[in-house]
Amino acid sequence: MQVKNYIKENEQRFYDELFSLIRIPSISAKSEHKQDMIRCAERWKELLEAAGVDKCQIMPTEGNPIVYAEKMVAGATRTVLVYGHYDVMPAEPLELWDSEPFEPVIKDNKIWARGADDDKGQSFMQLKAFEYLVSNQELKANVKFILEGEEEIGSPSLDKFLRDNVELLKSDVILVSDTSMIGKDTPSLTTGLRGLAYWQIKVTGPNRDLHSGHFGGAVANPINELSKIIAQMVDENGRITIPHFYDDVVDMSAEERASYASIPFNEEEYKKLIDIPDVKGEAGYSTLERNSCRPSFDVCGIWGGYQGEGSKTVIPSIAEAKVSTRLVANQDYQKVSQMFVDYVAQIAPKGVKVEVTPMHGGQAYLCPTDHFAYRAAEAGFEKAFGKKPAAVRRGGSIPIIATFEKILGVKTILMGFGLEEDAIHSPNENFDLDIFHKGIEAIVEFYKNLK
Amino acid sequence: MQVKNYIKENEQRFYDELFSLIRIPSISAKSEHKQDMIRCAERWKELLEAAGVDKCQIMPTEGNPIVYAEKMVAGATRTVLVYGHYDVMPAEPLELWDSEPFEPVIKDNKIWARGADDDKGQSFMQLKAFEYLVSNQELKANVKFILEGEEEIGSPSLDKFLRDNVELLKSDVILVSDTSMIGKDTPSLTTGLRGLAYWQIKVTGPNRDLHSGHFGGAVANPINELSKIIAQMVDENGRITIPHFYDDVVDMSAEERASYASIPFNEEEYKKLIDIPDVKGEAGYSTLERNSCRPSFDVCGIWGGYQGEGSKTVIPSIAEAKVSTRLVANQDYQKVSQMFVDYVAQIAPKGVKVEVTPMHGGQAYLCPTDHFAYRAAEAGFEKAFGKKPAAVRRGGSIPIIATFEKILGVKTILMGFGLEEDAIHSPNENFDLDIFHKGIEAIVEFYKNLK
Repeated sequence: MQVKNYIKENEQRFYDELFSLIRIPSISAKSEHKQDMIRCAERWKELLEAAGVDKCQIMPTEGNPIVYAEKMVAGATRTVLVYGHYDVMPAEPLELWDSEPFEPVIKDNKIWARGADDDKGQSFMQLKAFEYLVSNQELKANVKFILEGEEEIGSPSLDKFLRDNVELLKSDVILVSDTSMIGKDTPSLTTGLRGLAYWQIKVTGPNRDLHSGHFGGAVANPINELSKIIAQMVDENGRITIPHFYDDVVDMSAEERASYASIPFNEEEYKKLIDIPDVKGEAGYSTLERNSCRPSFDVCGIWGGYQGEGSKTVIPSIAEAKVSTRLVANQDYQKVSQMFVDYVAQIAPKGVKVEVTPMHGGQAYLCPTDHFAYRAAEAGFEKAFGKKPAAVRRGGSIPIIATFEKILGVKTILMGFGLEEDAIHSPNENFDLDIFHKGIEAIVEFYKNLK
Repeated sequence: MQVKNYIKENEQRFYDELFSLIRIPSISAKSEHKQDMIRCAERWKELLEAAGVDKCQIMPTEGNPIVYAEKMVAGATRTVLVYGHYDVMPAEPLELWDSEPFEPVIKDNKIWARGADDDKGQSFMQLKAFEYLVSNQELKANVKFILEGEEEIGSPSLDKFLRDNVELLKSDVILVSDTSMIGKDTPSLTTGLRGLAYWQIKVTGPNRDLHSGHFGGAVANPINELSKIIAQMVDENGRITIPHFYDDVVDMSAEERASYASIPFNEEEYKKLIDIPDVKGEAGYSTLERNSCRPSFDVCGIWGGYQGEGSKTVIPSIAEAKVSTRLVANQDYQKVSQMFVDYVAQIAPKGVKVEVTPMHGGQAYLCPTDHFAYRAAEAGFEKAFGKKPAAVRRGGSIPIIATFEKILGVKTILMGFGLEEDAIHSPNENFDLDIFHKGIEAIVEFYKNLK
């Protein structure tokens, strides 16, 4: 049977099953939902078993359990590890929802509910594609599933779980449906994510706030000096000045740049949306390239001295800032973190004491478009959506993707089907049914094209 | 009778009279002391009349009254207007006082009380010098007194009082004892005060805080941009870069610089006192010159973005700073204020909106050392302290001094006798009795040397 027909014939059952997952308020951020987490994991186990896995187990962690399942296929040359998460974000503010967040409704050809997209809806598509292939006896690869229950709170138990189960999770590629596409008519695959390095800088001048009349001009002012340090970090071409910062950056290929140039993007609308007079960034790159394929340097917070009403004439004792860079492949965040510490020490002005405290960080991720599984995903999208998907990197960070590569040693294919308007993490989360159907088809085609 | 003998003979009465002023808690900042203000003005009137003025009146203002008195001398060629203030700062924190703030005690050859120096003690010295000259029939100049009751709250009624009484206050010079000397063994006269211009800068980027992953690198960050604006204001030589900023600056004369070079100053102790690794300022000038004779640019406060614990990856919508310059003669603060507004507009980066709001300001003051009254004051100090006083400018601002010059058209001689250790505005304010005696003598000699 064709996948399209299979979906049509089973459509109501698919919704019923997905809704049974959605109706469990598996909110990992709230401890009162501890039992819901277990119920949701158990429901996943039932559905996985019904879909045709050989074995399935709910594996405890220090936090919420992880559901593991597998189907081994005789003669298979590839093993795919599917990752998803069964936990969801809280639904607040509840008054902004047009329907009950945990009682899904279908309206305007969309499912409306918390988790409809992120990630119950998307994970469920993986399950249904698997089910079709099993029932149609077309599955040629081994498939392993892990579904975690702590993604929305930063996956605190995942790292240990991966390290403890390297053998169990052995695979050739990881497949994740938890990201988004450029648009409904612009299918895309996420090929990269940015990394992050973050620091706090503290500039200490005099041991107390000084009268700016009595001392002004003779004593270094911590805010002036902090501003100078920050101002030096990015040059007039928008390039970060930390020595060797770009050494490990994988520059965009001509092919990737051509692909980016073809992405529909209206800069005027972009500026209007966030109400800025102009875009600004690294010379020689477009806005889409700047916010995903190139590193950035942003001060996230700054404070010092008098911040109240009116004027107070003071040289403050202390000024502080939180600063961060988004990194790209193959920058190592720990190496960059140290570079920054060294650079600030080198340029630190003499009249003040400058301390830099590295905060959290994460590695960037990049999937080559000639990866065997990327090619399969591309073929899957093309078949299902009728268009070759754009290969795009995303500016944000999903730390677990880099963790997978580090611990399990394999690349992840980010085969996400979300849309910007799906309102994940917000009231009225929704998921488009056309995409739901096409996505299942795309995943089926992924497996069929796996070489 | 010699002034020294006169002081010795009348010492106890002097203390009794001064203490009667000090015992009135004339705290202008607190409305519950309204009656004390009037009592203190009345007590001044009694003392002025007893000292020999021709007439004295308590003149109402919208705030606390101003005491006016005068003594006209037949054949006088000069008129001196003595300014002082009868209000004091609040005494809090009371628990840090070793004695009652409004019950003066003499200990270790000092008077301990709120107002012992600032400005009851110092104004009273003016009164006693005048009294001696009258009683000894040596007064050759007309003398006018004004004592205001709002100096510690910014003299809100003085401006109008001066404008309304230009004729009454007509004089050749104003004499004020309300500043300090370099040290007990280093008498000095204050020849200059710095002016002030103050602004608030607001840099607005996107209309809301943005995810630094999704937008970082493509959108101007208000904190980065504000830092750049600030960093550009002072160059590597410590010179302020605002175009034409120095055009009206009266540079120090070779004579003044030589005088400064001879002032005892221990830079290591200065650094140690405020615990800074090094001093910093305009190239080519010493620390003492930098903090009094040269302009300065200080950020007094800055804020924007995330200032809490940990890290938040955000491009803030807004960043703000309070910035100020200390000005020197003959910079006009309103002109400089506009220069800054224009300069920021000129260098404002394109991706953000930059607004500058001028706040309060004040003019600098400079008294030439060849002024007839300065020469008289110098001679007075030399006679009383046995040393030619150093001519020094002060880094702070006393706006009323510039106001006197603007409205009344005459220079002010800042014949102050305070010491750094007098702890004015702080607990345990005190005033040295040796200086109290020598100061009266110095003022007497001032009048005698007036040409």
